[in-house]
Amino acid sequence: VSKEADLIASFIARWGAAASGIGDDAAVLECPAGEKIVVSTDSSVENVHFRRANISPADIGYRAAAAALSDLAAMAAKPLGLVFALILPARLRDAANEIADGVGAAVGDSSCPIVGGNISSGEELSITTTVIGSSERILFRSGARPGDSIYVTGSLGGAAAAVAAWAASQEPAPECRERFVHPTPRIPEALWLASRGATSAIDLSDGLSTDAWHVADASNASLVIDVSKIPVTKGATLDDALSGGEDYELLVTAPAMDAAEFERSFGIPLTCIGKVAAGEGATFRKNGAPFTPLSGFDHLSRQ
Amino acid sequence: VSKEADLIASFIARWGAAASGIGDDAAVLECPAGEKIVVSTDSSVENVHFRRANISPADIGYRAAAAALSDLAAMAAKPLGLVFALILPARLRDAANEIADGVGAAVGDSSCPIVGGNISSGEELSITTTVIGSSERILFRSGARPGDSIYVTGSLGGAAAAVAAWAASQEPAPECRERFVHPTPRIPEALWLASRGATSAIDLSDGLSTDAWHVADASNASLVIDVSKIPVTKGATLDDALSGGEDYELLVTAPAMDAAEFERSFGIPLTCIGKVAAGEGATFRKNGAPFTPLSGFDHLSRQ
Repeated sequence: VSKEADLIASFIARWGAAASGIGDDAAVLECPAGEKIVVSTDSSVENVHFRRANISPADIGYRAAAAALSDLAAMAAKPLGLVFALILPARLRDAANEIADGVGAAVGDSSCPIVGGNISSGEELSITTTVIGSSERILFRSGARPGDSIYVTGSLGGAAAAVAAWAASQEPAPECRERFVHPTPRIPEALWLASRGATSAIDLSDGLSTDAWHVADASNASLVIDVSKIPVTKGATLDDALSGGEDYELLVTAPAMDAAEFERSFGIPLTCIGKVAAGEGATFRKNGAPFTPLSGFDHLSRQ
Repeated sequence: VSKEADLIASFIARWGAAASGIGDDAAVLECPAGEKIVVSTDSSVENVHFRRANISPADIGYRAAAAALSDLAAMAAKPLGLVFALILPARLRDAANEIADGVGAAVGDSSCPIVGGNISSGEELSITTTVIGSSERILFRSGARPGDSIYVTGSLGGAAAAVAAWAASQEPAPECRERFVHPTPRIPEALWLASRGATSAIDLSDGLSTDAWHVADASNASLVIDVSKIPVTKGATLDDALSGGEDYELLVTAPAMDAAEFERSFGIPLTCIGKVAAGEGATFRKNGAPFTPLSGFDHLSRQ
């Protein structure tokens, strides 16, 4: 029996009911009638997306899986299954089960079975997570219409504040640390919003100041955002909320929504931060005056 | 505009019609009515699965995509789409477009659209490819029945012979090199075999001597293989054919098949190498005498 097979058997035992149908060359899933398949892939690389000095192996696994699942939320899709590809250096073999536990915890929180995976050796730890979901009412980036309101779920900036604290050799505020290590894919929230007429969505993985442009460009419309309305996570700054991504909250355009009902249902705020207008691009204002955010996050530009 | 966005735009331009619907947080695919979704993920890591001294960036991309598509062949599934996750060191930035060209060539040869991707920085080059397919008649490893014949497609051992030659600082035989750099996912072949009553399939990614055990274990049956019947690629040895994986040919169990019609249809042989019997495990014989192959391939054990 190979070491890879041993490790996979160990993972499956730890995942329990969260693992489903692993063992063939590929996983088999059923697409509900009348729905379309939604697929996204996301990599989490040591020293690029996380540093082991700051977060535990279980947190690494949790965050990687949650970040991928967030892309299903952005499309208003329910999860059907997750496949993961772990590149595992020999020096980190002892951490593998804990990483798997973190993946298991994240998929459990989103009711997504783990249906397959691949383990390779390598010099650099990474987890590439691919999620497959389905939806009968998909939200794209391209659906924003002039007159729509612009909403964000939850609060922003915590993950970026945690990264900034670690970079300065400080301990992050607990709320900010938690946003980095345990982001919550907003899947039920997205389904709620889609069912009530939301017109577009994106997850804020690059940061609001960048992702608002993505929606504006795809929709051929202008997003006008009042930065004073942005809900900022306790311990984070407005710059963190605008320029830092990776909180994995959603930006959604929609007709007027019942934010109070949303908050009662999900325990997090739904905040209107602006309006869609005719035109192009994202425009930011603060107390009525033009405002220029710092730029968004770009992994490759950090090298 | 970020460097990642620039690179993705460059990839999409090079892929042309092979790229489809990239640009949202996730890709949208349609599952044909009455079919199930089939999903598999596979990583290709520098210095584990390939060495850049031996193969070109385009070959790296081709091989990674073809290896993933081969898992769809093993399930008798047609491709619906491929998503790739590239971890790209800054020192290899100039090779990125060529890697993408290789992925594009492989998906073109299997008529599989590229529907999404992710590019991350990192210190070690890897490509993790996830393929999504659909099938109305899935082949599992578990369906082999006593009395079935055991077939392999094509010829075996070439990829392992190429790796062995490179390890000895020699140039591989051209046929062997080609098997390593341009493996062919046997998708139309698998659909043909499934439609004619094949009972199980696996792709020979770990090597025949290991993969035969996988089928035997999953099927609660015994696979009895006559190694003298194994079609060995020109320039490779019987050991290469038995123990080396990564040719990505298929092992299929089935009632008697018309091998001549198969060869006329696909231009490669379909060779009967043994029989399924009651019992367990894989048994190898040569000229009537018991035969013990070298063990199969295990990436992790090589470290």
